Amino acid sequence: MDFQNDLYLKAHRGEAITRYPVWLMRQAGRILPEYRAVRAKLSGFRELVETPQFAAEVTIQPVDLLGVDAAILFSDILVVPDAMGLRYEMIEQKGPSFEKTIRGERDLAYLDDNIDVSDRLSYVFEAIKLTKQGLANRVPLIGFAGAPWTIFCYMVEGRGSKTFSESRKLLYTNPSLAHELLGRVATTTIHYMKEQINAGVDALQLFDSWAGILPKAQYEEFGVPYIKQIVDSFPGFPFTVFSKGASTSLSALSELNNSCLGLDWQMDIEEAREMVGYAKTLQGNLDPCMLYAHPNRVEAETNKLLNSFRNQRHIVNLGHGVYPDTNPENVKVLINTVKAYEIKHQ
Amino acid sequence: MDFQNDLYLKAHRGEAITRYPVWLMRQAGRILPEYRAVRAKLSGFRELVETPQFAAEVTIQPVDLLGVDAAILFSDILVVPDAMGLRYEMIEQKGPSFEKTIRGERDLAYLDDNIDVSDRLSYVFEAIKLTKQGLANRVPLIGFAGAPWTIFCYMVEGRGSKTFSESRKLLYTNPSLAHELLGRVATTTIHYMKEQINAGVDALQLFDSWAGILPKAQYEEFGVPYIKQIVDSFPGFPFTVFSKGASTSLSALSELNNSCLGLDWQMDIEEAREMVGYAKTLQGNLDPCMLYAHPNRVEAETNKLLNSFRNQRHIVNLGHGVYPDTNPENVKVLINTVKAYEIKHQ
Repeated sequence: MDFQNDLYLKAHRGEAITRYPVWLMRQAGRILPEYRAVRAKLSGFRELVETPQFAAEVTIQPVDLLGVDAAILFSDILVVPDAMGLRYEMIEQKGPSFEKTIRGERDLAYLDDNIDVSDRLSYVFEAIKLTKQGLANRVPLIGFAGAPWTIFCYMVEGRGSKTFSESRKLLYTNPSLAHELLGRVATTTIHYMKEQINAGVDALQLFDSWAGILPKAQYEEFGVPYIKQIVDSFPGFPFTVFSKGASTSLSALSELNNSCLGLDWQMDIEEAREMVGYAKTLQGNLDPCMLYAHPNRVEAETNKLLNSFRNQRHIVNLGHGVYPDTNPENVKVLINTVKAYEIKHQ
Repeated sequence: MDFQNDLYLKAHRGEAITRYPVWLMRQAGRILPEYRAVRAKLSGFRELVETPQFAAEVTIQPVDLLGVDAAILFSDILVVPDAMGLRYEMIEQKGPSFEKTIRGERDLAYLDDNIDVSDRLSYVFEAIKLTKQGLANRVPLIGFAGAPWTIFCYMVEGRGSKTFSESRKLLYTNPSLAHELLGRVATTTIHYMKEQINAGVDALQLFDSWAGILPKAQYEEFGVPYIKQIVDSFPGFPFTVFSKGASTSLSALSELNNSCLGLDWQMDIEEAREMVGYAKTLQGNLDPCMLYAHPNRVEAETNKLLNSFRNQRHIVNLGHGVYPDTNPENVKVLINTVKAYEIKHQ
């Protein structure tokens, strides 16, 4: 497939690029007035996720309005547990809420057997197809899913939490149940991501939002191996793993067979590069709060990040999703600074 | 002062010990039915903090009931901003709430000038004196305060937050105001801790609960230097710095002149020891969720931690406060395992 702009894919493959690619996690979202206008017409967040034409529309908005080098499908990581049988609601100002949770073996009965992912999540694949049409090969489209550990957190806890202590408790009280559930999530996620590729996505990203709440040894037992299972199902496909807060497991993550590692904003990117080596692309890692600064500062901080890159295997992004009250003008300053930056090394 | 049990202080000083000392953050608290009985008699959390006889009573409880090697004063880090002029309420199930916050220069007018810490926080010092009487030199008493960055977070945000993005925003939009406020908090904290020593505490701990939400470079500009100011005001005094989530700043923290570094549960303690070197005591770092496991597992995990120690400069603790629904019997298993463990190295 020939893209008008394939910088994002080239950076994944370690090919020579004329400038660094840039996109933002949560770029399709509340920072854009045009997104809020679509959202206001609908009953809620889930209607947006589940209606392909609207999901495609908001996915494409930041390509037109901000000039990013990749689109990321507007969706939610919780569509996977939903498809598995744990229906959730998204409560305004509060976040997700599951009626049923998995706390013991018998709760596994809540999960449906042999689900047909292509049917249950057909709205996602339809949205991908519509998005691809709308993008018309201007930039690549990224599909995504939550990593099994993060999905597990919601399936056990049933909602967001500061500590996810019910989820972490299960790792100690019933590790075999935990492995059973994580394995089932990983299997479903592999099917889901394969169908995303069939529908047309050009790259994939796994979000492990709650990686950082586990002890290192536990993350390497209950987190990383399931990411590895997924990654190994997509050899050679552009694939980003973003384990938020997992700085102490960076070397374990470096050994995975995917093309790109996402970094959160807490980590120094030069130290990360030293730990990861030069064979992987790094994505990140500006502080989302930096976008509250004066435009001159946004430009300076972006240039500082760019100057810290030691090779071409970098994709510029924030170290987390853009905060909803960010001024889109400052996002444009970030993006335009990246576009104006001349790469000096090979 | 001769203690019946001074293992905790010896570990700070790097002196030979017969066994490792152990205590738990939040040991004086909701895990104990005896604490809940005292609490139930009172109007709320603040009455407990502000009534010396009750604060002393619950401070001593875990020494009697759990057999810990140190007591830590029952109090709250927010008494400092409160004394500075920002009154807070503690709302049940929700956490602290400040009526006034510092978002711009003119909000500094909310802060009282030249406050007399010994008067405003007299209830703390009175509680220390009563606790010392009640302890009768059985074990040392730890005093504490919040680190300036964490106190700043509450003064700016006015309440708990997942992202503390208002506080972080200020570091970008008005760094000189941020430094001004952090400096004032540091100065007040130094006065406060000096008065704690005058009242009788045997050791001090700084809690930087929100260290982990800053980029490394920013934590080393807005966090670490104010900790250093405080630490340098107490040369030679047993002093623990606990910067939660600051694994990427561990080397900067290692260079401080205090005796002990607290570690959260995410970090591997052997890797931490390698980074910190052998000249500092390390405190931590069991996962609070581990205490939900079967007692046999609690014993095994505790022994695993103890086996990972390479010298005697260790104080056993969790990597965070004990969770309120923890079974005190499991806490006793942890403590008794530490007490039964024979130190094999010098």
